[in-house]
Amino acid sequence: MSNNRRWRGRVFIGASLDGFIARNDGDIGWLTTPPPGRDHAHIDSSRPALDWQTFFPSVDHVVMGRSTFDTVTGFDEWPDMWAGKSVIVLSRSLPLETEHVTVARSVDDAVALLDEDGSREVYVDGGQAIQSFLRAGLIDEITISWAPVLIGSGRRLFETLNEDVLLTLRGSHTTETGMVAATYDVTPPRIIDSRRL
Amino acid sequence: MSNNRRWRGRVFIGASLDGFIARNDGDIGWLTTPPPGRDHAHIDSSRPALDWQTFFPSVDHVVMGRSTFDTVTGFDEWPDMWAGKSVIVLSRSLPLETEHVTVARSVDDAVALLDEDGSREVYVDGGQAIQSFLRAGLIDEITISWAPVLIGSGRRLFETLNEDVLLTLRGSHTTETGMVAATYDVTPPRIIDSRRL
Repeated sequence: MSNNRRWRGRVFIGASLDGFIARNDGDIGWLTTPPPGRDHAHIDSSRPALDWQTFFPSVDHVVMGRSTFDTVTGFDEWPDMWAGKSVIVLSRSLPLETEHVTVARSVDDAVALLDEDGSREVYVDGGQAIQSFLRAGLIDEITISWAPVLIGSGRRLFETLNEDVLLTLRGSHTTETGMVAATYDVTPPRIIDSRRL
Repeated sequence: MSNNRRWRGRVFIGASLDGFIARNDGDIGWLTTPPPGRDHAHIDSSRPALDWQTFFPSVDHVVMGRSTFDTVTGFDEWPDMWAGKSVIVLSRSLPLETEHVTVARSVDDAVALLDEDGSREVYVDGGQAIQSFLRAGLIDEITISWAPVLIGSGRRLFETLNEDVLLTLRGSHTTETGMVAATYDVTPPRIIDSRRL
């Protein structure tokens, strides 16, 4: 594992209030197309969480698990939004010569790739990748948007850890669809980030 | 189950960001005495979630599971804060003549007790009671305070449901200890509450 990591591992994800990122069959309609007609409170915040329009352009690499990759490739074409991002897929079975992405067989392989590439800002996406990176101490920032629904079962955002992960709150806001978003830094910082000093 | 329920089931609880209300051994030190020294953002909200000082005086009955009762009775004396509240403990084994509380052998029994008592505002506390009441459609309001920590394992706030529970956001705020609090109404309302029309 890299001891002189130069990049930040960053999570930006939506979840149900009971902690799921998808139903067991992968469905995320409860998140993307929630039932309308609810009159959510309008709440102003003096210090909002990160939003996608700020977050996404700031990342240079994306690490995702196989499930997330399969979702992305389920679309007709490789999404334009990934152009300019280096995408690493954590998978033991995906062929190494897979189009559009670099396949990493382990977290250590992914870390080596990120280090070699001179990555600075890494978007870690999907439950499996987030959990693996968290356990390896490779997540520095977490933005969660809680959807106003309990779905009861599905794929969990967080799973077992080896130790507590302390967080420092940086910002929070709500949206007109009733989402509650919060951005946290992992504490203490896993890397010294000279850009924020 | 009561079809003409006159009382609201209300949840007010703290949880780790990964959805636990206690460690497996019952410890909640991570919630009540979090490590200091973190510089959480100060965030003003135009419409805060319910706070304890507003919530607690407004409830007339408390329903808790056996684990929560055992925690409460682990203190030297029956807490003063419960004076004036009728406390119902959901338990199949606790003796019916237990001091300070009324024992209910099932959710149906608890509902019958609440109906008979003319209850209006019911604080449902502890994972087991919350889960049982949620599954029975007896929760109308949820206030959650997310602690800025991942603890990895423990007693879950939410478990399996029979159907989605839709929520409407009413308020949200953060605290100086980095908690993110949000209050939701269950949607559609399970009871018509004339006091809020």
